[in-house]
Amino acid sequence: MPNEKLPREKVFRDPVHNYIHVQDRVILDLINSPEMQRLRRIHQLGVSSIVFQGAEHTRFTHSLGVYEIAREICDNFAANYPSQRPDDGLWDNSERLLTLCAALLHDIGHGAYSHTFEHIFNTNHEDITREIITSPTTRVNAILRRVSPDFPAQVASVIDHHYPNPQVVQMISSQIDADRMDYLLRDAYNTGTNYGLFDLTRILRVMRPYAGGIAFEPNGMHAVEDYIVSRFQMYQQVYFHPVSRGMEVVLTGVLKRAKELYEAGSVKKEFRPRLLIPFFDQDFTLDDYLQLDDGVLTTYFHYWQRYPDPILSDLADRFLNRRPLKSLPFSTGTEGLLPAMSKAVADAGFDPEYYTAINNSFDLPYDQYDPTSASPKTQIEIMQLDGSLEELSTLSPLVAAITGKVSGDQRYFFPKVMLTPKDDEHWQPAYGEFQRYLAHGQIIDPRINGML
Amino acid sequence: MPNEKLPREKVFRDPVHNYIHVQDRVILDLINSPEMQRLRRIHQLGVSSIVFQGAEHTRFTHSLGVYEIAREICDNFAANYPSQRPDDGLWDNSERLLTLCAALLHDIGHGAYSHTFEHIFNTNHEDITREIITSPTTRVNAILRRVSPDFPAQVASVIDHHYPNPQVVQMISSQIDADRMDYLLRDAYNTGTNYGLFDLTRILRVMRPYAGGIAFEPNGMHAVEDYIVSRFQMYQQVYFHPVSRGMEVVLTGVLKRAKELYEAGSVKKEFRPRLLIPFFDQDFTLDDYLQLDDGVLTTYFHYWQRYPDPILSDLADRFLNRRPLKSLPFSTGTEGLLPAMSKAVADAGFDPEYYTAINNSFDLPYDQYDPTSASPKTQIEIMQLDGSLEELSTLSPLVAAITGKVSGDQRYFFPKVMLTPKDDEHWQPAYGEFQRYLAHGQIIDPRINGML
Amino acid sequence: MPNEKLPREKVFRDPVHNYIHVQDRVILDLINSPEMQRLRRIHQLGVSSIVFQGAEHTRFTHSLGVYEIAREICDNFAANYPSQRPDDGLWDNSERLLTLCAALLHDIGHGAYSHTFEHIFNTNHEDITREIITSPTTRVNAILRRVSPDFPAQVASVIDHHYPNPQVVQMISSQIDADRMDYLLRDAYNTGTNYGLFDLTRILRVMRPYAGGIAFEPNGMHAVEDYIVSRFQMYQQVYFHPVSRGMEVVLTGVLKRAKELYEAGSVKKEFRPRLLIPFFDQDFTLDDYLQLDDGVLTTYFHYWQRYPDPILSDLADRFLNRRPLKSLPFSTGTEGLLPAMSKAVADAGFDPEYYTAINNSFDLPYDQYDPTSASPKTQIEIMQLDGSLEELSTLSPLVAAITGKVSGDQRYFFPKVMLTPKDDEHWQPAYGEFQRYLAHGQIIDPRINGML
Amino acid sequence: MPNEKLPREKVFRDPVHNYIHVQDRVILDLINSPEMQRLRRIHQLGVSSIVFQGAEHTRFTHSLGVYEIAREICDNFAANYPSQRPDDGLWDNSERLLTLCAALLHDIGHGAYSHTFEHIFNTNHEDITREIITSPTTRVNAILRRVSPDFPAQVASVIDHHYPNPQVVQMISSQIDADRMDYLLRDAYNTGTNYGLFDLTRILRVMRPYAGGIAFEPNGMHAVEDYIVSRFQMYQQVYFHPVSRGMEVVLTGVLKRAKELYEAGSVKKEFRPRLLIPFFDQDFTLDDYLQLDDGVLTTYFHYWQRYPDPILSDLADRFLNRRPLKSLPFSTGTEGLLPAMSKAVADAGFDPEYYTAINNSFDLPYDQYDPTSASPKTQIEIMQLDGSLEELSTLSPLVAAITGKVSGDQRYFFPKVMLTPKDDEHWQPAYGEFQRYLAHGQIIDPRINGML
Repeated sequence: MPNEKLPREKVFRDPVHNYIHVQDRVILDLINSPEMQRLRRIHQLGVSSIVFQGAEHTRFTHSLGVYEIAREICDNFAANYPSQRPDDGLWDNSERLLTLCAALLHDIGHGAYSHTFEHIFNTNHEDITREIITSPTTRVNAILRRVSPDFPAQVASVIDHHYPNPQVVQMISSQIDADRMDYLLRDAYNTGTNYGLFDLTRILRVMRPYAGGIAFEPNGMHAVEDYIVSRFQMYQQVYFHPVSRGMEVVLTGVLKRAKELYEAGSVKKEFRPRLLIPFFDQDFTLDDYLQLDDGVLTTYFHYWQRYPDPILSDLADRFLNRRPLKSLPFSTGTEGLLPAMSKAVADAGFDPEYYTAINNSFDLPYDQYDPTSASPKTQIEIMQLDGSLEELSTLSPLVAAITGKVSGDQRYFFPKVMLTPKDDEHWQPAYGEFQRYLAHGQIIDPRINGML
Repeated sequence: MPNEKLPREKVFRDPVHNYIHVQDRVILDLINSPEMQRLRRIHQLGVSSIVFQGAEHTRFTHSLGVYEIAREICDNFAANYPSQRPDDGLWDNSERLLTLCAALLHDIGHGAYSHTFEHIFNTNHEDITREIITSPTTRVNAILRRVSPDFPAQVASVIDHHYPNPQVVQMISSQIDADRMDYLLRDAYNTGTNYGLFDLTRILRVMRPYAGGIAFEPNGMHAVEDYIVSRFQMYQQVYFHPVSRGMEVVLTGVLKRAKELYEAGSVKKEFRPRLLIPFFDQDFTLDDYLQLDDGVLTTYFHYWQRYPDPILSDLADRFLNRRPLKSLPFSTGTEGLLPAMSKAVADAGFDPEYYTAINNSFDLPYDQYDPTSASPKTQIEIMQLDGSLEELSTLSPLVAAITGKVSGDQRYFFPKVMLTPKDDEHWQPAYGEFQRYLAHGQIIDPRINGML
Repeated sequence: MPNEKLPREKVFRDPVHNYIHVQDRVILDLINSPEMQRLRRIHQLGVSSIVFQGAEHTRFTHSLGVYEIAREICDNFAANYPSQRPDDGLWDNSERLLTLCAALLHDIGHGAYSHTFEHIFNTNHEDITREIITSPTTRVNAILRRVSPDFPAQVASVIDHHYPNPQVVQMISSQIDADRMDYLLRDAYNTGTNYGLFDLTRILRVMRPYAGGIAFEPNGMHAVEDYIVSRFQMYQQVYFHPVSRGMEVVLTGVLKRAKELYEAGSVKKEFRPRLLIPFFDQDFTLDDYLQLDDGVLTTYFHYWQRYPDPILSDLADRFLNRRPLKSLPFSTGTEGLLPAMSKAVADAGFDPEYYTAINNSFDLPYDQYDPTSASPKTQIEIMQLDGSLEELSTLSPLVAAITGKVSGDQRYFFPKVMLTPKDDEHWQPAYGEFQRYLAHGQIIDPRINGML
Repeated sequence: MPNEKLPREKVFRDPVHNYIHVQDRVILDLINSPEMQRLRRIHQLGVSSIVFQGAEHTRFTHSLGVYEIAREICDNFAANYPSQRPDDGLWDNSERLLTLCAALLHDIGHGAYSHTFEHIFNTNHEDITREIITSPTTRVNAILRRVSPDFPAQVASVIDHHYPNPQVVQMISSQIDADRMDYLLRDAYNTGTNYGLFDLTRILRVMRPYAGGIAFEPNGMHAVEDYIVSRFQMYQQVYFHPVSRGMEVVLTGVLKRAKELYEAGSVKKEFRPRLLIPFFDQDFTLDDYLQLDDGVLTTYFHYWQRYPDPILSDLADRFLNRRPLKSLPFSTGTEGLLPAMSKAVADAGFDPEYYTAINNSFDLPYDQYDPTSASPKTQIEIMQLDGSLEELSTLSPLVAAITGKVSGDQRYFFPKVMLTPKDDEHWQPAYGEFQRYLAHGQIIDPRINGML
């Protein structure tokens, strides 16, 4: 029973793709596996919903969306570019199920607030993705093994980019893949922005397989260009939003403080977070990992909100009640002023280790989304009528303008209260000192500006 | 400082209304209060996202949406129907802030999976809404008191329908109020169905105040009719979906079983759900209540999934991993067969107390949404050109068709596995017995059908 | 070359269906035929754009939309319900091209402002449709004949409902066919109303062939119900809009007056409408007919706007410059007052033959859209799990409410100026007399109301 | 009665803005004037609907859309930036009616297929706009004069850019004005493309008046950037579409040929286009101009389709029946080959004067839309927090990439049939010669390529 078809196609209603179409028993079983269902409890955009309130969607709906786009590409390739003989560079439809499984499972190792969590606890969602797929203990693995004994390893190799067929790999991960196309459309839909919109139907129409992977027909160049511009704009305006980053700094603080208190042995028993202990101890199993989700973290934040340590309780409260750190951009010219500003923050009673931070959006672990990390194998190719390939940015001045350039900014984070005037005699000096460095929402050098 | 205006209007991006406009300091502070922020962690549609996967939105975004609609109505009334003298039946704009606060706070007492939770633990979200607003211990109350000492009580009285001005009350709760209009549009947007769509802009244009409350101009009759039909369809197709109800039966089972085990004193210490204990003990404070959210419940379900009690662990697993009970509709003619079916379920090894249920969708506590419970004060009035009022269903045959009629159905729930054939000699008889009652997806009487 | 496939599918961008997909040479050639291209110059909704200004779309885009829906149904039937043997009631895909041609050509005989034009000139768009398809003089016929000599007659028989396969006939014309589904969605899109929206994707999923034609699966009942309600609402609010009908009365007047003047031999040579003369003479060829379009009529209206006959010039001006007749609804109780009102209109200087009219929306030749004319063969059937059929209105109270009932209203049309007060001594009596019959936008009996 | 308000706001349903709100008697009367109603018969995008079939909207709906955007800007300025004293650089709301009239009337001088028509007949729609507004013979002028005697001249001066208040002028015409914003959104909606979509609501929120005109707040920079990119993409993909341009070449040919035949005195009486004669004679009145619309031109094309002159009849048929000329891009390297190609076209029997053309999209009179023609007064300014202005392209690399660069291409047009093989001995040489210059859809130099 390598690839049993469902007696009748099953559909899931979806606001982005209208319907998700499932025709294979393996896919349906994977969707219903505990490892996939867990993604229902992990938000796709982490803390972004504090700014874009509609962004409450999860990695589960995104994963089904990626599957659906991959399915449509496979169907299109099978209909229009079927391979006739080995090495003709066309689409071999026996790769279909493998491709769909990889599309569906590509994010299965993501955890609660992955990027921050990984940073504190040294976990790695890519490693865990591979483990969920290949470990004989998981339901996902058992389902995949029904296809063939080496099928789990094949699925993992697609996600790892090691699978030999570049068409399969690029459909799942490249500069213009099913993953990116779904999250841009889905994030745009849920945030209510329209920067992320582009013409998915047209892009799917102009994709075509070739020996080196996937290319695009010339009459689709503008649709691809529009997708790239949409992606750029979503990063600028949604993913790198300073207020979301101010909340990530808070989240980092909560987890770091809790871990330090635990390591110091000072955590009272009743505040001990049972499901997090294996991670505090740096000794966790896959099963431990699979019990974590966004709700588990916020449940312990409820505990910690009442904890006697003032830093832990304040930071937990900030996270639960949407009180992010404030930020200002800085440049190489003003970077030197930050230590003095942090000293004023410390003098105002805030431990700078938790209440100040420097955050470079291009340094954040969003780099899988970063258009600057393009490697030759994933550059976007437009296939000319004579069969030759032209790299996209050579054809599009819009794309050329943003190719190879780091975008984003670096910001200094601090408690918002530092910006307010203080009548209080005790605290006034620290606040006054901090505010000397500010003018018109910019960090300035008070010595230079004072002279003007 | 009774009603301080913000120096500049603040907006929140929203996918349904595009922007939520906030002009008052009190409103902004309420939005940022812990009691409101908590609604970010409570899904608007409870378990419905297991069927309509996009339905991942929360009571928070809905609450802001209700506020926004109420704000637009107030602005429209203030511009077009300003009261000139007492008792002229027009709009007194000094009611604006009160109305907006009531709109924003109308759901603030909702808890995690309210309807099921309340059923098991005897809580009442309406009582708690009043308490959050009027108790001097809450942030919400402190913010409202800044307006005036009796302002919290006034806000609560609007939500309770006791406030004397019927225009204010009906804007927040009536057969066509800001609450219903927002949830229909928002649920439709997120589920990806379009049954819930109606012409909000037009309805807002044709609403007008009169001495008895709010009426509609005759040229808006069709838009109101369309709204009623949309509401009917959303109930039929989304809110009463049998699969969602099958998951609510599971949820009821989890909470009931956990409470019984606790009461029996047999819960091991390490599985004790700290934040739920006050509710098990039926002795909880408002603060206890405010620490609950959807994530807290599912976190304890993770604990219970590993609990030695097979019923508790299985039901917790069913909830986390989307394995709802299956159901079939029954009628008065087939209701008598259910005990025999439940006996077969018991013989198959499932405790019928947790694994079978009868669920009448019109009996579910969704009845605040029920169009059949209309009372005279909330019936929808169309104001004729001569100033007389005509009740909507007298003008619209479509509305008349569904007025005063109970809609929904009654269903019998059981484990889906009962439908599958069994080769196993031991279990076969129980399964076979159960399946005798089924034909073509209907419950049938095997004696009658056997004779045919 | 009975059914040559295009080397590569060709698509046309469409705002309603996103893309129209063309795979057959015959279809592409038909689209590019002069007879089809002519539909680009004929508005789909005739005069409705004077009320819904966005309704500027033509019968051409609608025809392609009908084709596209039929194509999707055929593809669905071919994939899921392929006939295995004669008379198994499933879909025989050799009917595909015939179905698509009939879908594309079903409106090809429509002319400029058909309903009014036909009324005056005794033309019949259904007869002309058949003639365009079957006459050897047309390009359409030549293209169809390439398939087979009797193919044109077959296409015509599908449109005429005489083709033996009821699946083919019902796909093109029934209570829920590709025609109605496209025009509802397209008219809703262009008018900017959302009454006409329904879930096309879902309806297409639940359609299925059976021996008697096309039925719907039970889980699609609500989507079909929603479609019926949408259709009802579009009639009430868009198609029967009183202002559009007031413009149709003007159009009737223009054409009638011009014809009468022509017949009286009093039309000056320079105002003679060359392309209309064959119709004035009641002696026209198919070629004459195919030269008419909306622009031809309005061009002659420009001529007539300068014509010395005051009635013709005024009515032509009214049509070009959006000055429709005004209307009021009347009932059997007030119908008896209309002659007296028309006398007042005459006394005010307006010839009642052209400036007053009674118009029953349910009497208008929109009856192909009329849900009341359902015949058994087109009633909507829901196929139960046991294979039996249930007629829709037995399952849906909403549909039952509007089934078999004539909807619409009857209105009396007159010059709007009759409603304004007159200071002028000469005209005042006529206007005053007319206005005695009005109160609160209703026709009233002044004797009765005077007594009150 | 300088600015009478309507007793109650009147709305027009619109698919792009949902509703158009009219509050002023003057605006309502202008909308209903014959000069405005005439725009209902002139398509907004001329021949573009032959490619984007949904593009059937007219200059009328666009004009109302421009009015609506201007109205929203005025309301926003009046609420948030009201002038307190002369020369404070804020918004003087006594400019409102003037602004709205100019917005509504800015395109009133456009004629049928303006750009082509003007080229042949030496008319100028801007001159005619001014004349319609200022000539005492028009209804528009009479309505405007009711405001004040010099009001018509003021309205014309706004449209001419001579009005002293730059805020008023820039709202109507600048690089980001109500005109461009409406046509991008409306053309995108009707063509079904989403390149033209941008966040109108946000742009309106961040617009603000200053002494030099209109600037944008820094937090709106990305929305403005997105608008510029959308505009660029609409030009590339919709407005400059080669197939539309191929139809414009045909249209030019029809009008040129008809004019030449007329001037040669060889037009038969029965084919004389009465409404065009004043333009053939180069002696037309404003009234003559106002009788022209798209339908008038196509009506005469019907006449000419039967005219004995083979070129006129063929070109008229091509226009009516969508048979545009084909085109290929050329460069400076291949431009020298075009005369030889045209000679082959001539040898194949097509008069090159009518059947070949060179068309530079950046040379077309669409240059009012051309982003390259920015003058200092209309450059887009972002107002920094300290009040200083930064030009957009200094802040946005995306905008910088397309600033000051000519976009578009130059193409050579010819009959499509030249691309097909010919078996015919007589014509084969000419066709064969032509095809020597083509490879892979490019113009090539056969001598060079032959050597390869």
